[in-house]
Amino acid sequence: MSNFTLPGEAGYEALTLDLAKRWGADVIRDSDGTTLSNEILESGYDIYSTICPIREHNEWIKKHPHTRQQTFLCTSPKTASGASLTFFLMDDFFKEQFQINDTAEALKYWQVYDRTEDVPIPRSKWRYNASDGSVTADTDPWRQYTVSFLAWRVWEEISMYNHVTNNWNKEHLMQLNPYYPEARSYLKQYMKKWCEERPKTSVVRFTSLFYNFVWIWGSDTRNRHLFTDWASYDFTVSPAALDDFENENGYALTAEDFVRQGKYNATHRVPSTKKREWMNFISRFVLEASRELIDIVHAAGKKAYVFYDDCWVGMEPYNGNFEKYGFDGIIKCVFSGYEVRLCANVPAKTHEIRFHPYLFPVGLGGAPTFSQSGKPGDDARRYWISARRALLRQKIERCGLGGYLHLVKDYPDFLEAMDDILSEFRQISALHDTGAPYILKPKIAILHAWGSLRSWTLSGHFHETDRHTLIHVLESLSGLPFNVKFISFDDVKDNSLSNIDVIISAGEAGDAWSGGVYWKDLLLVSKLTEWTHNGGIFIGIGEPSAVDGYNTFLRMAHVLGADIDKGERACHGRWAFDVKRIEGLIPDGAQIRARNDVFLTDGKARVLDAKNNTPLLTINDFGKGKGVYFAGFSVNQPMTRLLQNLILYTSTGSLEAEGITNDPYTECAVYPDAGKIVLANNNTAAATVSCLWKGMRYSTEVKPGRIKILDLL
Amino acid sequence: MSNFTLPGEAGYEALTLDLAKRWGADVIRDSDGTTLSNEILESGYDIYSTICPIREHNEWIKKHPHTRQQTFLCTSPKTASGASLTFFLMDDFFKEQFQINDTAEALKYWQVYDRTEDVPIPRSKWRYNASDGSVTADTDPWRQYTVSFLAWRVWEEISMYNHVTNNWNKEHLMQLNPYYPEARSYLKQYMKKWCEERPKTSVVRFTSLFYNFVWIWGSDTRNRHLFTDWASYDFTVSPAALDDFENENGYALTAEDFVRQGKYNATHRVPSTKKREWMNFISRFVLEASRELIDIVHAAGKKAYVFYDDCWVGMEPYNGNFEKYGFDGIIKCVFSGYEVRLCANVPAKTHEIRFHPYLFPVGLGGAPTFSQSGKPGDDARRYWISARRALLRQKIERCGLGGYLHLVKDYPDFLEAMDDILSEFRQISALHDTGAPYILKPKIAILHAWGSLRSWTLSGHFHETDRHTLIHVLESLSGLPFNVKFISFDDVKDNSLSNIDVIISAGEAGDAWSGGVYWKDLLLVSKLTEWTHNGGIFIGIGEPSAVDGYNTFLRMAHVLGADIDKGERACHGRWAFDVKRIEGLIPDGAQIRARNDVFLTDGKARVLDAKNNTPLLTINDFGKGKGVYFAGFSVNQPMTRLLQNLILYTSTGSLEAEGITNDPYTECAVYPDAGKIVLANNNTAAATVSCLWKGMRYSTEVKPGRIKILDLL
Repeated sequence: MSNFTLPGEAGYEALTLDLAKRWGADVIRDSDGTTLSNEILESGYDIYSTICPIREHNEWIKKHPHTRQQTFLCTSPKTASGASLTFFLMDDFFKEQFQINDTAEALKYWQVYDRTEDVPIPRSKWRYNASDGSVTADTDPWRQYTVSFLAWRVWEEISMYNHVTNNWNKEHLMQLNPYYPEARSYLKQYMKKWCEERPKTSVVRFTSLFYNFVWIWGSDTRNRHLFTDWASYDFTVSPAALDDFENENGYALTAEDFVRQGKYNATHRVPSTKKREWMNFISRFVLEASRELIDIVHAAGKKAYVFYDDCWVGMEPYNGNFEKYGFDGIIKCVFSGYEVRLCANVPAKTHEIRFHPYLFPVGLGGAPTFSQSGKPGDDARRYWISARRALLRQKIERCGLGGYLHLVKDYPDFLEAMDDILSEFRQISALHDTGAPYILKPKIAILHAWGSLRSWTLSGHFHETDRHTLIHVLESLSGLPFNVKFISFDDVKDNSLSNIDVIISAGEAGDAWSGGVYWKDLLLVSKLTEWTHNGGIFIGIGEPSAVDGYNTFLRMAHVLGADIDKGERACHGRWAFDVKRIEGLIPDGAQIRARNDVFLTDGKARVLDAKNNTPLLTINDFGKGKGVYFAGFSVNQPMTRLLQNLILYTSTGSLEAEGITNDPYTECAVYPDAGKIVLANNNTAAATVSCLWKGMRYSTEVKPGRIKILDLL
Repeated sequence: MSNFTLPGEAGYEALTLDLAKRWGADVIRDSDGTTLSNEILESGYDIYSTICPIREHNEWIKKHPHTRQQTFLCTSPKTASGASLTFFLMDDFFKEQFQINDTAEALKYWQVYDRTEDVPIPRSKWRYNASDGSVTADTDPWRQYTVSFLAWRVWEEISMYNHVTNNWNKEHLMQLNPYYPEARSYLKQYMKKWCEERPKTSVVRFTSLFYNFVWIWGSDTRNRHLFTDWASYDFTVSPAALDDFENENGYALTAEDFVRQGKYNATHRVPSTKKREWMNFISRFVLEASRELIDIVHAAGKKAYVFYDDCWVGMEPYNGNFEKYGFDGIIKCVFSGYEVRLCANVPAKTHEIRFHPYLFPVGLGGAPTFSQSGKPGDDARRYWISARRALLRQKIERCGLGGYLHLVKDYPDFLEAMDDILSEFRQISALHDTGAPYILKPKIAILHAWGSLRSWTLSGHFHETDRHTLIHVLESLSGLPFNVKFISFDDVKDNSLSNIDVIISAGEAGDAWSGGVYWKDLLLVSKLTEWTHNGGIFIGIGEPSAVDGYNTFLRMAHVLGADIDKGERACHGRWAFDVKRIEGLIPDGAQIRARNDVFLTDGKARVLDAKNNTPLLTINDFGKGKGVYFAGFSVNQPMTRLLQNLILYTSTGSLEAEGITNDPYTECAVYPDAGKIVLANNNTAAATVSCLWKGMRYSTEVKPGRIKILDLL
């Protein structure tokens, strides 16, 4: 089965072709920083060619500098000690990344804010001095002020990162904003020519579209990364787009709608209606302008794949419009299981995952990979185990690698790891081809502010969001045999709960995952109350349904039988309780992060785990349904098993079921049509494991980290 | 020097008189539960007789049951699953403590609340059924409801507690509400007769006045103490007083103003204006009605002392009116140093502290004292060390014990401890008589919502409030050589900061100590900003000035150079920093409780201590002043010394000063007029210690737990 994409590298033709053969590649690709030689291009393999459509246009951009991309920036606050304050706007920011946009169109969007009162000061009370890039504002003494302004982005951020991290040394690339018609028109010409110049290319691999994730760098190396988010849309702004938005929506956005007190619009904050409307506005534009490029690719007889990373902002694979792009495939790099599910559920014909590690000397976060002290083989196997859990549940058609191929030659352990990984990938793929694997009955919905738009993701990779409980839950669920969907608070009110058995709400007070102000909505609370009372299982993790202002901090406290005391109840007693364990429910090694502010509302919830007299895991009967409170959740195999157990126990009354193993570290997937059962050992020790299926028990040993496939009898 | 009050006990006359002699008593008292025999009464000692004016009136109250005391109660919330809900009002509450008050005057104050929407439902939508004590309300399904109602209190709470804890077994005492004119009139007659019957009594010891601290007990032993607070004023209500309040203030209070969503008006919550006006209303009544009783005492040729405990609500020794009562003395029981200062600063002629342990088999919290496994001598010495720290700073005229004297006879270690304690008390008293001890220059103000009204206290004893950072700070300060005052947020705006060098704000977000919504006040923020900029030292501990809705969570973040991230900044980088210690500033053993949400605002604050890359102690230059951020504070001797060091260092630039020791565990007090220096070893090991005074260094050894007094040269 040929479904592997190998990065080739000019100058290493023999290595490229050897590995293509060894790993059964059908495709050779270039990467950011490598090229393919004629020998490779003509070796008979399909060719993916990478294009980042908005960079590599420095020459044209220099002649049309107003088409550079932009962002709003907000200075640090300053305290007034007299009647005026002067801000040198670029003091806080990385001068190689940003330049002030002080054109007339831009200046009308600037704002000076009194942060003590949290109101903008009138335009008549501040003056811009172009000669030194400063703003001087009339002030009331002893208040704090900030200036929000538009800035050109003058160094494409991925190049900037690689330049700094991987010692790239070439001209700083700028990025084109196709929102400007002349840029959009230029880009079409460029795309056409680009295709013509690459007759051997079979797939154009877009990396990705127009707008990068937000990455605002600071002037000081002690605080270089001021703000980083994968979907905050700050980098999509321009005066032209803002003006058009106003015409279309009947109201104008301000700098403050983007900078939000200097905290910006991170994905994990509850989105405002304005932010949603801006996202829709930009998404419509990105679809329209991208479609033109994809049509050119198709007209040139090539396929168009999109790499779901870096510059995907505006594309939104889960907004219901993705199929309109006409992409032939989507490629996702994966560190984690949830990223496999994120890729697999995008409505596209071909799904490809790009494995980690990327073939670079240094990985994300600066860890060594293909360099001294790096262990890329171990890395690959570790990432594979996470990805494999999800691959057992859902089909992905292709896989691949990326980067500088020559780096692998000194790492035989990596070569062997890839042998094993590709073998397992293909065995699993073949099983999916026979039919879907068995899933357990309970249907699960993850409830948060974004709903299906942020299915199987928060914002970026696991290590970037690991302070959020929800990503841990998603990673656990990504490899469990359940049907999982993602719903928003509006979906709850629209009566979309009829097919759902279990709702999981996992977040911290005020964030988009918990829901914040959404919980002031009476209809939301009463609908969920009714749904649980009629037999639903509501699982709340961390600070679910938390909002200030009511008799309980958790608005679902009556369902959960547990609440959180933010200090108001310091003089209240708490219900004493005994921990009443359920035999086998909490596996050895499952540890729930303790907190000391949880208490029982009416003393009736069953406490399954506790620390320092504080409940950590409770089950509460509520009508025909149940509320489950989980104080915290950090993913590992025992916690994953605990989650599976809880869902099973609360939905079915039993921990026993067909199609699951008796070992938390070894999971299984049953493919009834193939007549096979796959046992996957996710541990570094060998496993002796069994699984019940159709009344028969299948028992075997599985090697550390590997899978074993048994025939169903 | 005779300044000791001994509890006597009928039946133990020899013991009483022996110990009176051994401990140099000048006064013998009775206690709650003991009497004095003629032999004791006529032994030549002054006699304190205890009276709790509102109890021991069962006979009269039975004839006038409307004069019983009352409270508002709020049921647990219930979820409606249909068009109506029935609440059996007493389900949640201890039936021996409460009875429903369903008189017409009372019923008009009842409320049924929709807690999902947080609004009361109209009176026409609920019905009371007197036959079974239930309320049935018309409901919208899937919402939560509560009923707030008035209840008679039918068992005086201190008797109830002792009944349960110390196995008292007598008729349940009720409590009289002198707000009713007939009760007030009856009480005057009773007081007159009471005095006449006690010719030997020299001091009437009021324990205390009319209204007990709030102590709402639940029906279930698993959750007996539903709500406990020393100053929430719930137990002061009656329809008569509520009606009069409305007439006086032009608006009516509702049940909700007291029960506040079931969370009640605990002292540590930011007080509403309505609560303050109710407190003032009740305080005026308590003063007026008590003054009548005190006049009767004086007319009988006796003195009137008040015990500042249990039933002090309404008296408010710090509201500026205390002198109007005409009390001759105030008595405070002390576990801690801050309670000594609380007593010492009340404007009264005589201050007396009652030592712990109380002579009871079991102490507060159920710990054994004068019973098997109890170590009352150790207890007494431990409490003494805390009290002594404060006694070194401020004069208290008298001391005493309370309880059942016969219990002490089997505890010779306790007798010896009292020998030592009384000896040290008298030595220190004698020094105060020569003049005030030396204090360091910086003048300190503690800033919180209550200001001077809650000087040197939060609400109750240390162990009852130890989750609040401020009580730890107060306990440290109680023994430090500083001038300390207490100011409110209104005081700041009234320009009352001119004589203050250091302001300390210590609390958690939203509580009365941090200030909560007060920090939305622009004038407060700008006044404190100005004051610090002009040279003030602002020390913030925990979550000082925290309120939601602004660019910073801590409104004084610009002054502190540090802020707290409640999750909104998950995508923001944080300033890297090096810990730059100040030699000698943080003593060995001082450990600041870690938190992970603190970050530097502009990277300029000096970080003195950190954990897991999170600042725990910072100093920030701000104009001519400084902001100091302290992540947490738990009192012990090294932390106390750290606080002293910080105040000295930020105010004077140096850790060196005259009149302080070089050992955190041993403190000193210099009495210049007496020409003495007292070195107090607060540790269980011997200390070698020195102190600088007028350029000369005084060095000596001090025994574990004891003091040594040196002559100044």
